[in-house]
Amino acid sequence: MTTTLTTRTVSYPADGLTMVGHLALPAGTGRRPAILLGPEGPGLNDVQRRRADALAELGYVALAFDINGGRWFTDPQEMLARALPLLADPDRMRDIGHAALDVLRAEPRTDPDRVAGIGYGTGGAILLELGRAGVDLKAIGTINALTTGRPGEAAHIRCPVWAGVGSEDPIMPAVQRDAFAAEMQAAGVDWRLTVYGGAEHAFHHPTVEHAVRPGVAYHPRHAERSWRDILALLAECVPVTD
Amino acid sequence: MTTTLTTRTVSYPADGLTMVGHLALPAGTGRRPAILLGPEGPGLNDVQRRRADALAELGYVALAFDINGGRWFTDPQEMLARALPLLADPDRMRDIGHAALDVLRAEPRTDPDRVAGIGYGTGGAILLELGRAGVDLKAIGTINALTTGRPGEAAHIRCPVWAGVGSEDPIMPAVQRDAFAAEMQAAGVDWRLTVYGGAEHAFHHPTVEHAVRPGVAYHPRHAERSWRDILALLAECVPVTD
Repeated sequence: MTTTLTTRTVSYPADGLTMVGHLALPAGTGRRPAILLGPEGPGLNDVQRRRADALAELGYVALAFDINGGRWFTDPQEMLARALPLLADPDRMRDIGHAALDVLRAEPRTDPDRVAGIGYGTGGAILLELGRAGVDLKAIGTINALTTGRPGEAAHIRCPVWAGVGSEDPIMPAVQRDAFAAEMQAAGVDWRLTVYGGAEHAFHHPTVEHAVRPGVAYHPRHAERSWRDILALLAECVPVTD
Repeated sequence: MTTTLTTRTVSYPADGLTMVGHLALPAGTGRRPAILLGPEGPGLNDVQRRRADALAELGYVALAFDINGGRWFTDPQEMLARALPLLADPDRMRDIGHAALDVLRAEPRTDPDRVAGIGYGTGGAILLELGRAGVDLKAIGTINALTTGRPGEAAHIRCPVWAGVGSEDPIMPAVQRDAFAAEMQAAGVDWRLTVYGGAEHAFHHPTVEHAVRPGVAYHPRHAERSWRDILALLAECVPVTD
């Protein structure tokens, strides 16, 4: 198979920072379904850039967006100092998401009527907030992002939501799974939740080292399964048809 | 596409009854991975027979096995009178499962080293009991079968387990999801649980009528998704390679 993937670094302002995203375009010339891909709290790194590339190889326009102004935090305390206030502020999350969405929609290859979002951790929380803001996404897929929103706003989500989480994730315990499920169900959302048995936080991320802290570990089998589950969501909601 | 599916009705003794299963063979002549397909409490009907046929079209040998001696119970009380004592007796469930497994293994097209099980409700509980008995299955996939076993026996399960359930299933409430997850996790099983938001009991079954009782309803979208999830499990664990 010959792939003629094109990638581009895109800079744009959001949240008082200059965000540095990674845009991946599929072969061909026409409009294609487009995916917003949100990274976890530490920021955008090559793991997520390569996922955007993988989506482009499947025929999607994909933007791996930035949440930290070009930074990848290796120090957990520095990461939390950025992520925790952000996660507590739906309006800031929406601004970051809208800015990325504007970049994606401005790309001529993007079919603006077929945009879906997938995200990990903080990036997933941002996509859920776009949904709660009523943005027309065709699917929202998240991993480790069982964040609940402001009362009543989940009713604005009009697309299927798929969420994945590790059973042993200390940051996303059973009580949070239940709270997220209850919010989605009360809002009448078409939702699903997959619990990956034995998986800890960041289970999907090959560069995470177990030593970072207890409860954080890469789980290769579930990482691969979760990627397949996300691709199945996209195939259902925004199939590549041309 | 030309399919030359072959099907056969197979009768065999188990649990003091004559079981009447439905065996579906794929095109070709060689050995193939083989699937035990267990039906829900009311029994084996055309819905599950057609699922076995669909598996054969994908290249699997598939046996939709019987649990009720050829009967399909339409009366819920009659069904429960059969199913509840059965579900309370792991040894009887294992006998029914072993008898079906013997039929499947006796089929010359079956590759005895590549047998997996999928099951719905009571049929799923039977497959989990085969796993707890230490039977060499390559995958166990269940829907609406979050039955826990005798203490310690889940450690005999040596294959990936995938379980699906509706979030609004009154027979499989959150407390049972948690108990099943805890059993699998404590036993070191490679497990996953997918919760289908808004789905009620028997959500996968097109002939179920809402009127049967509250909490029971067909859910077409989740029915299709759950079938895709099962096929993904089989593709991972017992891929058709020839």
